[in-house]
Amino acid sequence: MAHAIRFLSVDAILKAGEGHQGVPLGMAELATALFAGELKFLAADPTWPDRDRFVLSNGHGSMLLYALLHLSGYAKIGLDQVKSFRELDSHCAGHPEYDPAAGIEATTGPLGQGIANALGMAIAEAYLNARFGDGIVDHMTWAFVGDGCLQEGVGQEAIALAGHLGLGKLAFVWDDNRITDDGSTELSISENVADRFRVAGWHVVEIDGHDLRAAAGAFAAARTDPRPTLIAARTTIARGIPRLQGQRGGHSAKLYETDRADMAALFDWAATPFEIPDTITEAWRAAGRRNAQCHAAWKARLEALSSEDRAVFERTMAGDLPAGWCQTILAAKQAALADPSPRFSIQASGDIVSALYDEVPEIFVACADLEAPTNHKRHLAAFARADRAGRYLHCGVREHVMASLANGMAAHGGIRPAAVTYLAFSDYERPAMRMAALMGLPVVFVFSHDSIGIGKNGPTHQPVEILAALRAMPNMRVIRPADAIEAAEAWEIALSRTDGPTSLIFARQQLPLLRRDATAENKSARGAYVLADATGGERRATLLATGSEVAIATEARTVLQERGIPTAVVSMPCWDLFGAEDKHYRRMVLGPSGVRIGIEAAVRFGWDQWLGPDGDLVGMSGFGASGPADALYRRFGITPEAVVSRTIKLLGEN
Amino acid sequence: MAHAIRFLSVDAILKAGEGHQGVPLGMAELATALFAGELKFLAADPTWPDRDRFVLSNGHGSMLLYALLHLSGYAKIGLDQVKSFRELDSHCAGHPEYDPAAGIEATTGPLGQGIANALGMAIAEAYLNARFGDGIVDHMTWAFVGDGCLQEGVGQEAIALAGHLGLGKLAFVWDDNRITDDGSTELSISENVADRFRVAGWHVVEIDGHDLRAAAGAFAAARTDPRPTLIAARTTIARGIPRLQGQRGGHSAKLYETDRADMAALFDWAATPFEIPDTITEAWRAAGRRNAQCHAAWKARLEALSSEDRAVFERTMAGDLPAGWCQTILAAKQAALADPSPRFSIQASGDIVSALYDEVPEIFVACADLEAPTNHKRHLAAFARADRAGRYLHCGVREHVMASLANGMAAHGGIRPAAVTYLAFSDYERPAMRMAALMGLPVVFVFSHDSIGIGKNGPTHQPVEILAALRAMPNMRVIRPADAIEAAEAWEIALSRTDGPTSLIFARQQLPLLRRDATAENKSARGAYVLADATGGERRATLLATGSEVAIATEARTVLQERGIPTAVVSMPCWDLFGAEDKHYRRMVLGPSGVRIGIEAAVRFGWDQWLGPDGDLVGMSGFGASGPADALYRRFGITPEAVVSRTIKLLGEN
Repeated sequence: MAHAIRFLSVDAILKAGEGHQGVPLGMAELATALFAGELKFLAADPTWPDRDRFVLSNGHGSMLLYALLHLSGYAKIGLDQVKSFRELDSHCAGHPEYDPAAGIEATTGPLGQGIANALGMAIAEAYLNARFGDGIVDHMTWAFVGDGCLQEGVGQEAIALAGHLGLGKLAFVWDDNRITDDGSTELSISENVADRFRVAGWHVVEIDGHDLRAAAGAFAAARTDPRPTLIAARTTIARGIPRLQGQRGGHSAKLYETDRADMAALFDWAATPFEIPDTITEAWRAAGRRNAQCHAAWKARLEALSSEDRAVFERTMAGDLPAGWCQTILAAKQAALADPSPRFSIQASGDIVSALYDEVPEIFVACADLEAPTNHKRHLAAFARADRAGRYLHCGVREHVMASLANGMAAHGGIRPAAVTYLAFSDYERPAMRMAALMGLPVVFVFSHDSIGIGKNGPTHQPVEILAALRAMPNMRVIRPADAIEAAEAWEIALSRTDGPTSLIFARQQLPLLRRDATAENKSARGAYVLADATGGERRATLLATGSEVAIATEARTVLQERGIPTAVVSMPCWDLFGAEDKHYRRMVLGPSGVRIGIEAAVRFGWDQWLGPDGDLVGMSGFGASGPADALYRRFGITPEAVVSRTIKLLGEN
Repeated sequence: MAHAIRFLSVDAILKAGEGHQGVPLGMAELATALFAGELKFLAADPTWPDRDRFVLSNGHGSMLLYALLHLSGYAKIGLDQVKSFRELDSHCAGHPEYDPAAGIEATTGPLGQGIANALGMAIAEAYLNARFGDGIVDHMTWAFVGDGCLQEGVGQEAIALAGHLGLGKLAFVWDDNRITDDGSTELSISENVADRFRVAGWHVVEIDGHDLRAAAGAFAAARTDPRPTLIAARTTIARGIPRLQGQRGGHSAKLYETDRADMAALFDWAATPFEIPDTITEAWRAAGRRNAQCHAAWKARLEALSSEDRAVFERTMAGDLPAGWCQTILAAKQAALADPSPRFSIQASGDIVSALYDEVPEIFVACADLEAPTNHKRHLAAFARADRAGRYLHCGVREHVMASLANGMAAHGGIRPAAVTYLAFSDYERPAMRMAALMGLPVVFVFSHDSIGIGKNGPTHQPVEILAALRAMPNMRVIRPADAIEAAEAWEIALSRTDGPTSLIFARQQLPLLRRDATAENKSARGAYVLADATGGERRATLLATGSEVAIATEARTVLQERGIPTAVVSMPCWDLFGAEDKHYRRMVLGPSGVRIGIEAAVRFGWDQWLGPDGDLVGMSGFGASGPADALYRRFGITPEAVVSRTIKLLGEN
């Protein structure tokens, strides 16, 4: 059965002309032992909610996964797909691409992400287990992992956090082949990796990775030990190809027909390319059906629930929020209107979402050691070794794994994760945020401290380019609310989204309430809208602003109107939603006539699409500085006075 | 002397109204023992090349550093500066801001960066020691570090790599106070941190961090042990303020006059705010002069060198390249012209820079486990435990620390670091790249695999938004060369730069030679230029392209010209340089007349500034896909045919 993986992989890689044979050949026995003897899965029901999760964190070895899925009978991974490995539109892409219905639990390739996703899946399982009980949610999360994933910082963060949380249903299977792309691992690592895991509180089992019985024993030990388990499996990279096995070239050196012939001779394999002997096929299909009884029993337990409980579980796993949650958003808007005093922007966000915490138990908040300044914990208990019903995760100062595990929770299903930190530190999360966008996962990334408005902590903590960098990312929705009402609308947009992540960008400072309407209409959902229209004549100036700068625009408009210049203020919390509106609406909002001035405490990059060639931006041209916020706004010329004078200059008046 | 640190810090924080007292109060004894007894420095010569480097990695505790620098007599940190802590334009900014002349070796604040910078400084020292000998370069690198830095992935990468490299002149002093912003470290970490260092091969000394004698002993042990040393110093956060010490609020809770009064009573401190008793001031100034003899002896050794050797050392430390290096760039251009066959873009980069390796021994290349596909090692030896003269660093799969240590090497001086990986993985480096831009460090970030042109490895490895994200970063120069001649010009621009980092963006695929001139003129230095002008009449279309898409533009131009449409091709390798050109040049290049079409296998974000409201971009609107490169270019419509048809459409013709 292991050889079937080997030959399918080599056949597909030969046909594609490229690929990474090291992992499928080196982990064939481990994969066989897992799928044929341990993993709780049913090929006929890939999205069975209580299946074990399996993540191939060393995603370059994708043919291992495709071979497993094909052999065990996943309908979407037919032989035609395997044969089109790495071709356009094949389910068998160069790296695994998230598709639970095909058995692919996560997009992997950028190293370290997969094991951090697995950590998130294990957290999701633990929380849902506490919520729904052993009968409904009780599964393992397995990840195959190479040296690269363990060298990456995000991987190290995952090891530390998983050990700290004591996630006993998480297991990594380490492909300890002593080879990376550059050659021997001795080039870049001297430490005993197993000991590093032991220090972090993991259960470690060391085995020969080509010994099926040893693997089975290790898996059973992983399942029963209360700690997370590392199975350190000593393997030979590219095992089976005499020319490459155990060598640097085993990783991904080009394969030739002679290599296949040598492997066939070595393993006495007579089948033609892509052909699998019937007995082996049948054994694999049996593996894919192995858990049919267990699956049926689970279904029976689900059906035995009260119809209400069952509906809650099914709704939760489907990612649908409980009916009526938008009423809570509306109530938050009305509450803001009822008390229109200025609010700390990030606190307003906490006020809104925390009002949903009880009503929407799938909201799970992770934060990177900034509980007090970001203010989103509220009445949530901490998720901890001793309390799996908690749903606020103290991640420590580990932003990267925070984002990756949020992805893993979303990919698991049943959780609506929010990850919270300062906007300046979003750069630490960025590789994972990209994966959320690529996978289309509905993660909410919440950011505070979004500009020079943070003041004295200085330029390291003052984003100026990060809004642009996030807006440039495909499928990442970026929303920067101007006040508490827009903040509520932003949360409504974010939680309504099911096909991708949202970044919510809040200020540290107090923002006045600018909106004076609180109805079910979500004005932010159009991306931009006229907050205050020009009066006294045809519009001559349009002030376009986001977040904390909308208040500056509003002040400037008052002065301009007083000077007889009909001026509109446009709040544009979400550029991509606005960009998706029809041309007529965009033109109406941006101003059919007159000049346009953007106001944002950030760089101009990207603004030209709204300002046109003649527009001006009142913003930043470089990094910030350390000083009081109001001094910084004056220093960098982001004031109502500057907006007024530059508007007048653009109009050619004095 | 330690109390002087405490009171100066508290006085400055009280005056500023905010700050982080935890570190200066908790590490006062450690800092005193280091500066007064161990650290090789001379306050009168802050940039003494052979000084010990000191990095405050827990940069939020900046008042500790300012107090040390002020007390020991650094001229730039006068009492007026301390009194203006956190005010605009003070040298005593919220977080330390890189200024070696003031004694500030690195900008710190984003956690983990400082210790990774320190790793780079220690590598720089080891290499320069091998190059110039013990008499000229032989110093320690010390970093103070908190729990946050050690939780961050980049910190973990630094620990692993430093242990692997066996950098005996590197020492971290860990402020083991058991408190982070969220409260007890028990919320987020269970592992024995000292053991984690031991696993990585570090020498660990555990001490009471308030015991001056123990600290002195630990420092001496660090200096003599051949391994890097962790001094695990058990401390009490905010020690001296009864209300806060050892508490969560010790980190940065607001201070009151009563806190100062309580501390004054506790320590029997009679001096008024900002006043330091004369005997203590004198003791600190003596510490600042302590190494005067050592400094003089070093100067004497430097002067004893041959004038040639001395000149080389001084030139190297000043960051000036050897005269004539541009001739090698010119020769590379001429070589490309002599053999104009298509080249693998990233290989062309390797060809160019490797021609400088012997001539410019300060070029030091770090790469994250992609030696073969990025092709920049060439004849360089690996920097390793056994070979400090090597200057190719196998970083392992650790992009983040690679970038941060490159920053540290540049900050140390005497090294021109280049850090190499795939463009998709620049996201892993981004927090460090931002620090390079903020510090103005001349690091060269080299990237390969820059677009869908990588083909079958798929969207995880295909940047589409990353060019935009890098271009948005202030002070980050981004250059995407179109062929081998532009690649040479790009290296010339990057190595000429002394005030900030450069990102060089190369393709994986072969690019034809488009330029047919090879003179000393660097056309890329203007950012964009007309590669092929319109002929046969006034320009009607301008095709603006970068990198691999310039060839597509060139093919499209041929067709358009044939159809009687005078068309120019503009290569725009570097947007920020072009943006800095005068309006007349920009207008001439972008086309005073006709339509503009951008061609770049990337998202439109940022392009509008060049295209204007009526221009079109032939590019990407979302993530890529897995498939052969040519199939992807066709799928996403980035072809000469598409450029032709969209140009014609824009012109309103058929």
